[in-house]
Amino acid sequence: MADIVKEFDDYRSKMNDKILADNNKIIKRIFNLDTNAYTKGALDVKTKELLGLVASAVLRCDDCVKYHLETSYKLGLTKEEVVEALSIATLVGGTIVIPHLRRAYEFWDALESPNK
Amino acid sequence: MADIVKEFDDYRSKMNDKILADNNKIIKRIFNLDTNAYTKGALDVKTKELLGLVASAVLRCDDCVKYHLETSYKLGLTKEEVVEALSIATLVGGTIVIPHLRRAYEFWDALESPNK
Amino acid sequence: MADIVKEFDDYRSKMNDKILADNNKIIKRIFNLDTNAYTKGALDVKTKELLGLVASAVLRCDDCVKYHLETSYKLGLTKEEVVEALSIATLVGGTIVIPHLRRAYEFWDALESPNK
Amino acid sequence: MADIVKEFDDYRSKMNDKILADNNKIIKRIFNLDTNAYTKGALDVKTKELLGLVASAVLRCDDCVKYHLETSYKLGLTKEEVVEALSIATLVGGTIVIPHLRRAYEFWDALESPNK
Amino acid sequence: MADIVKEFDDYRSKMNDKILADNNKIIKRIFNLDTNAYTKGALDVKTKELLGLVASAVLRCDDCVKYHLETSYKLGLTKEEVVEALSIATLVGGTIVIPHLRRAYEFWDALESPNK
Amino acid sequence: MADIVKEFDDYRSKMNDKILADNNKIIKRIFNLDTNAYTKGALDVKTKELLGLVASAVLRCDDCVKYHLETSYKLGLTKEEVVEALSIATLVGGTIVIPHLRRAYEFWDALESPNK
Repeated sequence: MADIVKEFDDYRSKMNDKILADNNKIIKRIFNLDTNAYTKGALDVKTKELLGLVASAVLRCDDCVKYHLETSYKLGLTKEEVVEALSIATLVGGTIVIPHLRRAYEFWDALESPNK
Repeated sequence: MADIVKEFDDYRSKMNDKILADNNKIIKRIFNLDTNAYTKGALDVKTKELLGLVASAVLRCDDCVKYHLETSYKLGLTKEEVVEALSIATLVGGTIVIPHLRRAYEFWDALESPNK
Repeated sequence: MADIVKEFDDYRSKMNDKILADNNKIIKRIFNLDTNAYTKGALDVKTKELLGLVASAVLRCDDCVKYHLETSYKLGLTKEEVVEALSIATLVGGTIVIPHLRRAYEFWDALESPNK
Repeated sequence: MADIVKEFDDYRSKMNDKILADNNKIIKRIFNLDTNAYTKGALDVKTKELLGLVASAVLRCDDCVKYHLETSYKLGLTKEEVVEALSIATLVGGTIVIPHLRRAYEFWDALESPNK
Repeated sequence: MADIVKEFDDYRSKMNDKILADNNKIIKRIFNLDTNAYTKGALDVKTKELLGLVASAVLRCDDCVKYHLETSYKLGLTKEEVVEALSIATLVGGTIVIPHLRRAYEFWDALESPNK
Repeated sequence: MADIVKEFDDYRSKMNDKILADNNKIIKRIFNLDTNAYTKGALDVKTKELLGLVASAVLRCDDCVKYHLETSYKLGLTKEEVVEALSIATLVGGTIVIPHLRRAYEFWDALESPNK
């Protein structure tokens, strides 16, 4: 796995474990909802993942964007589909989204180059 | 057409005309992009409309939400699909999205009750 | 009850009923969490209410501010305590919070003048 | 004076008086800074007013935009200059700024039509 | 002192000195207000610190969160109280607050492990 | 060139090339608008650059701030003018802008110390 992907996954996983071990009920339930919200319903999982990606991008949350990029990649969404979703985010959210777009491209490249 | 839909459409249309008549190149091109971004590409128009809706909801822009609700309705998206998209927006954006959710429900009801 | 309080409560209550009747699981659970989060825990209910108020104010959500003002009033928080919390919100969030401060003062006055 | 200008000025003035009478030191000092920040310094007052306008527009604060439009108008800034500043705000802040642009145009028209 | 705490304190202190030496009146007064706002008034200092923490968390400002975590720690607030405040921030601000929650947990751990 | 300036420029340039090579029409046009919006019009280029800087600062986009600082520096804007613009951003946007102010000062120092 590319370094920036592994680094992101490891830190996220380690800290999520600490947060969940801490046993605050509200936080635990929000984490739980976060898993349920992206499962198949009236909308399919690919569409939901892109909704999460665009919401993350316009709110300019790099870690959230990375998470949804990784899941999108695993679900088989193409780069063209992902970029099209990000283009809507950039239009709606404005040019301040562009620095996050740069990091999103870098992360997607890393996802596609597992042995780099 | 229900009153709150007509009122929204009329004001939006009247002011957009004034803005475009004013002939500022940057603004005109952004308006133009706003039309192009939601046409069919790698993603279909329904998915793109939902992406615009979720981006608008997490950024808490009532008028943008109304616009995308109206287009979603015209494209034949079901209430269940739209609500599922909005549920992701509420989770990602937090409980501050809830007041916008109330107004979104009211607007969708108006879209479905054209003779009210 | 003063008009702007009653109007706010009625609309909020009517639309929340519609949203919950719609039975989207994610949204229902978020509503549920929203009730649980402000109950007594390591922190007392008054402190938690002020935390909700300040979070709402810096995120500039008028309806959320009104809701927490009303609950703060019912819990017996004084105007001085509430204003002090709002002063921190204005400092942290900047002068763009001021228009929301105006509406917060108006709403608090209405809460204190039930027969107006 | 046009109705929407007068209504805005009256409410703003009435509530500011209430807030300042309340004597919270932090809030009073922020109001004081808000006056000082736009006086002539290394930058002239017209430039500073446009900076306040653009900051307000990208943060999507309608009342702040109205305030800076009114001051810009009184300072003799032209519509073309103001619109150019708003075009930068729309590009940086994205299409979610557009609804605020509509209301800004309406308010500017009201400023220019005092007897309407 | 743990590394990430020291690194944060040193950079913050060095740059604040530079900013204040620069003698811009508006900025100096805002810094001054920032000190005054958290002193005892109608509300006690612990409550005010938690208000600053929650405002910082929902606005997703990592450095502001770190600053308020450090002050909270020095004031003797418990981890349980701090986490409860952060749980409200996560609910109000949504899942985009979670990455900031991870870094907040890491920083709090560092505060509790001064010799690490 | 100072290290943090060179590092910023190199990454920005490398990733912009990748994004533009990817040929998404919406994104390409937004990049194009971003160039056009800051050219001389009713307002001069220095004023426009400061508008971009303040918009970036209140939206708390470090990379956007760096970009506009670098262009401001090249256009011959003085530190006093730039700081005055940033003081308005800090007042309008609140104390959460302060961490970005620290990094802005550091970056401006680097721009002024090319051989450091």
